[in-house]
Amino acid sequence: MQGFGVHTSMWTMYWDRAGAERTIPAAAAYRMDFIEIALLDTSIVDAPHTRALLEQHNMRAVCSLGLPQESWASVNPDGAVAHLKNAIDKAAEMGAEALSGVTYGGIGERTGLPPTQAEYDNIARALEAAAAYAKARGLLLGIEPVNRYENHLLNTGWQARDMIERVGADNLFIHLDTYHMNIEEKGAANGILDAREHLRYIHLSESDRGTPGEGTCDWDEVFAALAAINFKGGLAMESFINMMPEVAYGLAVWRPVAESFEEVMDKGLPFLRNKAAQYRLI
Amino acid sequence: MQGFGVHTSMWTMYWDRAGAERTIPAAAAYRMDFIEIALLDTSIVDAPHTRALLEQHNMRAVCSLGLPQESWASVNPDGAVAHLKNAIDKAAEMGAEALSGVTYGGIGERTGLPPTQAEYDNIARALEAAAAYAKARGLLLGIEPVNRYENHLLNTGWQARDMIERVGADNLFIHLDTYHMNIEEKGAANGILDAREHLRYIHLSESDRGTPGEGTCDWDEVFAALAAINFKGGLAMESFINMMPEVAYGLAVWRPVAESFEEVMDKGLPFLRNKAAQYRLI
Amino acid sequence: MQGFGVHTSMWTMYWDRAGAERTIPAAAAYRMDFIEIALLDTSIVDAPHTRALLEQHNMRAVCSLGLPQESWASVNPDGAVAHLKNAIDKAAEMGAEALSGVTYGGIGERTGLPPTQAEYDNIARALEAAAAYAKARGLLLGIEPVNRYENHLLNTGWQARDMIERVGADNLFIHLDTYHMNIEEKGAANGILDAREHLRYIHLSESDRGTPGEGTCDWDEVFAALAAINFKGGLAMESFINMMPEVAYGLAVWRPVAESFEEVMDKGLPFLRNKAAQYRLI
Amino acid sequence: MQGFGVHTSMWTMYWDRAGAERTIPAAAAYRMDFIEIALLDTSIVDAPHTRALLEQHNMRAVCSLGLPQESWASVNPDGAVAHLKNAIDKAAEMGAEALSGVTYGGIGERTGLPPTQAEYDNIARALEAAAAYAKARGLLLGIEPVNRYENHLLNTGWQARDMIERVGADNLFIHLDTYHMNIEEKGAANGILDAREHLRYIHLSESDRGTPGEGTCDWDEVFAALAAINFKGGLAMESFINMMPEVAYGLAVWRPVAESFEEVMDKGLPFLRNKAAQYRLI
Repeated sequence: MQGFGVHTSMWTMYWDRAGAERTIPAAAAYRMDFIEIALLDTSIVDAPHTRALLEQHNMRAVCSLGLPQESWASVNPDGAVAHLKNAIDKAAEMGAEALSGVTYGGIGERTGLPPTQAEYDNIARALEAAAAYAKARGLLLGIEPVNRYENHLLNTGWQARDMIERVGADNLFIHLDTYHMNIEEKGAANGILDAREHLRYIHLSESDRGTPGEGTCDWDEVFAALAAINFKGGLAMESFINMMPEVAYGLAVWRPVAESFEEVMDKGLPFLRNKAAQYRLI
Repeated sequence: MQGFGVHTSMWTMYWDRAGAERTIPAAAAYRMDFIEIALLDTSIVDAPHTRALLEQHNMRAVCSLGLPQESWASVNPDGAVAHLKNAIDKAAEMGAEALSGVTYGGIGERTGLPPTQAEYDNIARALEAAAAYAKARGLLLGIEPVNRYENHLLNTGWQARDMIERVGADNLFIHLDTYHMNIEEKGAANGILDAREHLRYIHLSESDRGTPGEGTCDWDEVFAALAAINFKGGLAMESFINMMPEVAYGLAVWRPVAESFEEVMDKGLPFLRNKAAQYRLI
Repeated sequence: MQGFGVHTSMWTMYWDRAGAERTIPAAAAYRMDFIEIALLDTSIVDAPHTRALLEQHNMRAVCSLGLPQESWASVNPDGAVAHLKNAIDKAAEMGAEALSGVTYGGIGERTGLPPTQAEYDNIARALEAAAAYAKARGLLLGIEPVNRYENHLLNTGWQARDMIERVGADNLFIHLDTYHMNIEEKGAANGILDAREHLRYIHLSESDRGTPGEGTCDWDEVFAALAAINFKGGLAMESFINMMPEVAYGLAVWRPVAESFEEVMDKGLPFLRNKAAQYRLI
Repeated sequence: MQGFGVHTSMWTMYWDRAGAERTIPAAAAYRMDFIEIALLDTSIVDAPHTRALLEQHNMRAVCSLGLPQESWASVNPDGAVAHLKNAIDKAAEMGAEALSGVTYGGIGERTGLPPTQAEYDNIARALEAAAAYAKARGLLLGIEPVNRYENHLLNTGWQARDMIERVGADNLFIHLDTYHMNIEEKGAANGILDAREHLRYIHLSESDRGTPGEGTCDWDEVFAALAAINFKGGLAMESFINMMPEVAYGLAVWRPVAESFEEVMDKGLPFLRNKAAQYRLI
């Protein structure tokens, strides 16, 4: 996880053979260093096929997911571990470097109450087991704090740091996302500063999940903070313009947040790359 | 609705006699021009008592609400109208100038699908009837777009403008909120520019609903846009640090978003007032 | 003056036949709506030749200058008028739409003292005569406030507005510059708001006069303010990377402020154009 | 040099006994950790008297200056050293911790040409000697890059870093200033990142040298960068509203940049203190 990449949602949320074949060459054509593949349903994934395509295009990969409700770590840590192990296996087969995302719970998980100690205890237990399993397979395991509406448990950089320091696994890392930080953190840089020791991956996602550079995120502050902490991890552009209904539900995307694929790739992507280059991050 | 006010959630979310007695003198001590009273449950409100307190402290008032699920305008416009009429009556009895907020639906209303024409038709019908009723009682009626997680129907300034222009009632106005705008609009000023003809009220709420001035909202851009459109409406500071569980649920506030009441009132409030004064809005 | 243009300093500061021949086709290749030509020395300009090139490339033009010390309007209004008339004649011959810039004094004019009423009286007198002359030739006449180091007389939008309202000529307009505004105005938008009635031209120049988008200017605030006032004038990118020593002196540019011509034209220009398009200004 | 202080120009630019008596108790009343005293004319300074007042009010001090034209280090390194030694003696007698400012040249020094190697060689020689002398007196010596109009030699954090690394004295430090950075650096944080190893002092000065919080400086980005580099030096508010004509000339302040002393101290100062506290810098 290094360099500049992109979430494959720009091309597909359905990672079967056709999805992989459409996406990997397209991402390579945009000179991506890596792609992020959403492992929503491992049963449709042909891992050796993806691995071959990745190698053919000299492309690295990171996998990501959110847990399904029956496997939320806060209430069913064993179920979570089982789900994560399956995903880790698939990611390893594909040749991915990490599994990340909301690996501790659901996108849309909310009890209507503040987090409890028992919920955090269960999460810590699941992450410990999953991190050990990932390590044995040579993978890193990330946790991504998301905003208060998508999950009530880990919303900020400091909450993720506390969890990581509690679990203590050296292949566990923090994965931030500028879209969520824009809602949850006290300033664009603070999440990065709080997470600095453990930060290895960041989603560059605009405030409305549309075209980067056209929203309210303070990109200079974000990139300056990354430069200040000597960030060496992966920078992944993320925009949600092509959502299947069941994904849109969790993400609450009800209208087109960008005009088109081209607007994101031909305006937003150069904007982010230029900023990353200005701050000598790529 | 003019000048600088505050949402009474700083003191209470429970507007009975005790709540009113605690809040109105306190708001007056902070030199507020008006207060915003949440009409969550009109049955506990002693309207003549509130009116007397308001007059005694030379304080103006605006009421606000979100509709309960059984009265969401998108599915039950008649129920919505009935609910709104009751609230309008109460607001009028209290001497308030307007009823505003999510007057078209629920805080937390989501179908999991994009908005439909039928939903908008129902909302337009309900707002038309409610606006007429409010006008007869001498009140303005506001609609507040909220973020994608709190409602799927009106998220942006331009959506609110389209709805208002469709309904066409001259006492219907747009009520923006910087917290929601920070998520939904393409830049801090755009919601204000899109809503400009109908904007009469704005919640000044930080990006995390905590202490104004300590989050990611670009306040200069917000106030410059208000100055540019020659805004003459009410500026209402809003911060959610004292939430009853049932309210926290809709707002998804799971942790203290500010250190204390004092931090909001003694740091955040002067910050906003100084900015408003710099842009000659107060 | 409308649309998106560029200061010709990107190609030359020496507007002889060779300079015009190098610049106009190049600007056309970048799809500019107009160019700004610095009239530093009218004696080298072949006006009919420039006019023909402009027509051939369907390019519009604005001319600009600063007055030489012997013709500063503050001390020698008659000399200023004579200098301006000559420039207006040349601009008219070239087919330019306006003469603008520091038409009221020198770039680098400073007495070491605050402005005096006598200085402003002289300036007003000179501008009145020059505006009348420009009108007879069908040209607009602009005044550009610059920062405190480049001139002590007109530094802000409100000072320029006061001068214009005093003179009262309807072809006199305000020409702002984001580089100077970044130093002089109380917020990125305030100069625009103060100048709004008379603003017809703006230099889009980064805080260090380098690559637009890589400095401290708050471009969203600038463009939002332009959108808010319904700006219909010319947007002119300006960057000073190719300075002759005698020009660098007035502008105090001592080091390369951008890496290269390409950095400005291939990163900075798309950045500004995308922002202008986002705010529907082009 | 630690904590939050203020430049004494808020009270006086004339540091005789009366100036010291007016300033030190006033700064103490505003709970300053230190003051910065401008050593424009050491002949009027009664150093033991200042020292006694500082001790009496438990106040620390930093001294600052710019060199007079006859002693610019770029052309007269020996003269510069003599001038600096005298100032270091006076600062030591007053009990100050450092001498800083434009210790390498003049405020207003410009040759009209880019810097030359010979100029830098002379500066390096002067700073080496002055730093050694300061060390013997127990003082730190700072260099403050200023904007292109005030000096052509050191305008940015990286230029100051290069000079410090060349000289190699361990009591030599970088002193940044947000006002100058806002003009010279590629983003609000970059000067801080470039200077990080040597940064021990920073002027918090608004973009127009007026009331902090009311200009174009991006304070969140500044404070986030300071937090990111674990800054432990002095934060000194600076605003120039009370200028003697001969000082105003060098600084090019031609109009009141703030409404009043009170506006700076009662709005600007709390603004900066709250931001510094938010980022845990005080």
